[in-house]
Amino acid sequence: FNKLPHYATHQLGVAGAVLDVNAGKVLVVQDQNKTTNVWKFPGGLSEPGEDIGNTAIREVFEETGIKAEFKSLLCIRQQHRHPGAFGKSDMYIICRLKPSSFNISFCQQECLRCEWMDLAELAKAKDTTPITANVARLLLYGYKEGFDKIDLTMREFPAIYTGLFYKLYHKELPEDYRNITDV
Amino acid sequence: FNKLPHYATHQLGVAGAVLDVNAGKVLVVQDQNKTTNVWKFPGGLSEPGEDIGNTAIREVFEETGIKAEFKSLLCIRQQHRHPGAFGKSDMYIICRLKPSSFNISFCQQECLRCEWMDLAELAKAKDTTPITANVARLLLYGYKEGFDKIDLTMREFPAIYTGLFYKLYHKELPEDYRNITDV
Repeated sequence: FNKLPHYATHQLGVAGAVLDVNAGKVLVVQDQNKTTNVWKFPGGLSEPGEDIGNTAIREVFEETGIKAEFKSLLCIRQQHRHPGAFGKSDMYIICRLKPSSFNISFCQQECLRCEWMDLAELAKAKDTTPITANVARLLLYGYKEGFDKIDLTMREFPAIYTGLFYKLYHKELPEDYRNITDV
Repeated sequence: FNKLPHYATHQLGVAGAVLDVNAGKVLVVQDQNKTTNVWKFPGGLSEPGEDIGNTAIREVFEETGIKAEFKSLLCIRQQHRHPGAFGKSDMYIICRLKPSSFNISFCQQECLRCEWMDLAELAKAKDTTPITANVARLLLYGYKEGFDKIDLTMREFPAIYTGLFYKLYHKELPEDYRNITDV
């Protein structure tokens, strides 16, 4: 048995789906310099040592000027032979964020357009990517029937050998399962 | 705005929680050569270009001799400065697998012990890692109240620019949200 490869095989991209629950609107952008203009969630590559939620918050702010806080993790995509990843694989995560500011001031180098779009409109939009439309539907499901239906929430745990901590994301566990003694 | 770093920052580890729903038992191993003997799910590092579910299936088979099929993704862990990752970050995913064989023939180089353990027993075990106990509780929740409560299911999508496909994992979306025309 070969324990190799012990090296990094994936780049990590993170996007933020910033949902204003009062208005039912979500923050979307169109990239500069693309042949087709499609709406998508702002996001970008994770920096070394950066937590998933912090990448989403940073990228959303850099692209749109909107401040937001981390709520949950919504989906994970794995793609091999990603064109921008130099033969490596790409892991891409979309987080649900809650806005704490609302006035858009978008980065003109990166974005062609940026707006708060009605969530139901994005869920059925044609000028978007398949993943964006799909996550918009997921968000709409959570918005209408409760975010517990779609959220992976975060818990922090001690790493057993190192004394470090790590973050674990999964479906919320009901209280009576969290502190099990006998079921 | 700096679009760098455009390189791989994460190694990806994947474990398989192989649950025999008829017996209510889950496959666990103890690593060789550890100072403390703790029960955990078999798993290991993803090979370049390998899908998450296939890493879980391969690692489970290599370590335990058990054949299994992919059912869902259960949790994601992100850890920085991982000791085995040479300063890179570590992404670790646990999948739910369904066994298609049951006779254990474990790898003596990697494993000290391997057994089918009662799921409820693992959920309250002391001689395990925090993540294993937590995922055992999550599995127990799904086992008792429906796996739809805990599963991230997989869908395949076309990548918009490249013609390639990618796999997306998230909570199952009800049929009426999947093909939205007007909500």
